[in-house]
Amino acid sequence: MGDDRPHVVILGAGFAGLTAARALAQAPCRITLIDRRNYHLFQPLLYQVATAALSPADIATPIRSILKKQRNASVLMGRVQGIDRYRRRVLVDDQEIAYDQLVVATGARHSYFGHDEWEQTAPGLKKIDDATQIRRRLLLAFEQAETTQDPEMRRALLTFAVIGGGPTGVELAGAIAELARQALVHDFRSIDPSQARVLLVEAGPRLLPAFPEALSVKAVAALKRLGVDVALGQPVTECSADGISLGARQIRCRTILWAAGVMASPAARWLGCDKDRTGRAVVGPDLALKDAPEIFVIGDTASVHSDGKPVPGLAPAAKQMGTYVGRVIAARLCGWATPAPFRYRHLGSLATIGRQEAVADFGKIQLTGRTAWFLWGIVHVAFLTGVRSRLLVAIQWLWAYLSHQRGARLITSPASTVD
Amino acid sequence: MGDDRPHVVILGAGFAGLTAARALAQAPCRITLIDRRNYHLFQPLLYQVATAALSPADIATPIRSILKKQRNASVLMGRVQGIDRYRRRVLVDDQEIAYDQLVVATGARHSYFGHDEWEQTAPGLKKIDDATQIRRRLLLAFEQAETTQDPEMRRALLTFAVIGGGPTGVELAGAIAELARQALVHDFRSIDPSQARVLLVEAGPRLLPAFPEALSVKAVAALKRLGVDVALGQPVTECSADGISLGARQIRCRTILWAAGVMASPAARWLGCDKDRTGRAVVGPDLALKDAPEIFVIGDTASVHSDGKPVPGLAPAAKQMGTYVGRVIAARLCGWATPAPFRYRHLGSLATIGRQEAVADFGKIQLTGRTAWFLWGIVHVAFLTGVRSRLLVAIQWLWAYLSHQRGARLITSPASTVD
Repeated sequence: MGDDRPHVVILGAGFAGLTAARALAQAPCRITLIDRRNYHLFQPLLYQVATAALSPADIATPIRSILKKQRNASVLMGRVQGIDRYRRRVLVDDQEIAYDQLVVATGARHSYFGHDEWEQTAPGLKKIDDATQIRRRLLLAFEQAETTQDPEMRRALLTFAVIGGGPTGVELAGAIAELARQALVHDFRSIDPSQARVLLVEAGPRLLPAFPEALSVKAVAALKRLGVDVALGQPVTECSADGISLGARQIRCRTILWAAGVMASPAARWLGCDKDRTGRAVVGPDLALKDAPEIFVIGDTASVHSDGKPVPGLAPAAKQMGTYVGRVIAARLCGWATPAPFRYRHLGSLATIGRQEAVADFGKIQLTGRTAWFLWGIVHVAFLTGVRSRLLVAIQWLWAYLSHQRGARLITSPASTVD
Repeated sequence: MGDDRPHVVILGAGFAGLTAARALAQAPCRITLIDRRNYHLFQPLLYQVATAALSPADIATPIRSILKKQRNASVLMGRVQGIDRYRRRVLVDDQEIAYDQLVVATGARHSYFGHDEWEQTAPGLKKIDDATQIRRRLLLAFEQAETTQDPEMRRALLTFAVIGGGPTGVELAGAIAELARQALVHDFRSIDPSQARVLLVEAGPRLLPAFPEALSVKAVAALKRLGVDVALGQPVTECSADGISLGARQIRCRTILWAAGVMASPAARWLGCDKDRTGRAVVGPDLALKDAPEIFVIGDTASVHSDGKPVPGLAPAAKQMGTYVGRVIAARLCGWATPAPFRYRHLGSLATIGRQEAVADFGKIQLTGRTAWFLWGIVHVAFLTGVRSRLLVAIQWLWAYLSHQRGARLITSPASTVD
């Protein structure tokens, strides 16, 4: 279109890609931000959609709205098929898009450790559609338990297994226990939802391995108070429609949720570059490929070290990388000195467990219980995108806090063609 | 389960069925309310989900929550397959349920006047899934128009046809025009969404035929101010992926929405009883079948006359029938005198067109413009089920009013299996 400003193409509008685009607002370039979705998703609250506390639109904001006023940025909804490093082109659907600088921020998805066939019975939680599907499974299990006459089947329907003891697994298990014991408890006539069994399975020796050990212990205690069974040091050896196996031990359950492994998006394959064990592209201290300085990889797709330690796959890390890459690109375009190598600044870790229960780690300061829970709520509302989301989430949390209810208890069809 | 109270089975938890269940709260019976969904839907606001203003959960409330405290009522999620009048049993999925009194309130769906093949290209708006699918089509049309290079295709993508000039058609057409001209107007770089063309097609001589003629004229004027083209007296003769035909006139468009015909659910077929032209079961003045006084048909499934005029398919009419049938059944069970025949009391008609534009008819008093619009908003918030829905809808309307934005602009997959 006759625009001769350098073209910066950013793949992925998650925390990393979106922050990079915004960091380039004043830079002398034109930006194309490409995502297969039309919205930016606030993933830390996705488990609340899966457990019927929030609606999808409460935590998703149209990318076009966010960048509406940034006139050097345009948004393209499309699916990346590959990258041609040598001709400097990205293939999006059936379109080729030339770039001068490329930022790859395509995120991560679940890893089933070589058991991809488990995905069908044990869905993970990365996308809006995952969340509405999990919500459907959870709520349908109670509905089916109410109608079945078979006590064995009823027990299997009321047993919920969450695989993986990181923050997502802990949050899901806590939320399912609360759903059963508080929100649904008076709603059925044949079953008692508070008899539902929630099982949290972790292969490693403790929950929340990124947190200090004392907080892991507190998390187990808090989950037990909510009625969650925690199984530590027990890798899952089988997932099927009938249930899970932990070695010789078999547990019949109809709902299995996967919150265990993470694998990077195929960016390293597209780029033909070095990758780590989880498929993340290995980048240099400026977050660019060593042999292609015009290609940056950031967020969950990048394997980065800072101060000798791997940078964790967290939203604040992704945002810091986005801001950093924006500065590097702006410096290049303006002929300024290259910024110092990327350093990750850890701001703290937070995980919520249930009503008035959370753990927070800020290095010297550690918090649990109600204080950590309020802090968690305030931080998450503050970081949400846009006034509308903040208002809606805050009001729904307040309502849920007062009523002990869940507001978004809809069973919607997996396919719109059903009936 | 050893309960010898008479069993009242209610099919459908729309306005009619739910009101009937609640009207029986004090009656000496046990009630089973059966619906294929787990929620009661506030259908008058469904077009706002379709046009990205509200989320599904804002206008849908779990049926179990609504009836949680009504201990004589239980809820069954299931699909009615048929009714055996002679054995007094309902077939739900693979279960037979015996009844003493039966209330059929299974609603209505769209009629394509013998052109069922049009449904694929011209979806109607009756269910949550319809609304999210229409939202997806509307938003994707703008996304695809932004990327296409073909000006013919772009024009077809930016042309939206709404078939049917009743309240739903008028509301949809107005909301799409506002979406294009206000919410999306600054979000794209290649296209100008305000150039989108919205066409409202009505086969009859005027819009809103249930309203006084003066208000129909005002509605046309208000729609024209919003940029909607109104075509009156023009029946659609063809719908396809390429567009619509109005007799010899062909209009290329990629999005067609159907708000024209209504056909009752198959209740009359299940019951083997008389039906009217749109498939509604003909009932007597007590809303029961003439030859089976224990079977009532109410709501959009029933063909009822009151004061010599047909009762319209509106939410207030459905609720009045529900209350009436509750009273008739309670009277029978308690041995009281049978209530006087059903009389429909018309409370007024309201239809919104757009920002500060609505029409309201209360017989002697007719309102238009801002007054009617505020009244419409207040009435709809007041009639929503539950404090949570009222709060969320009111806040989102306030936010939309101030920001001119639409908050729920998500393109979600039609099937959860897509990527």
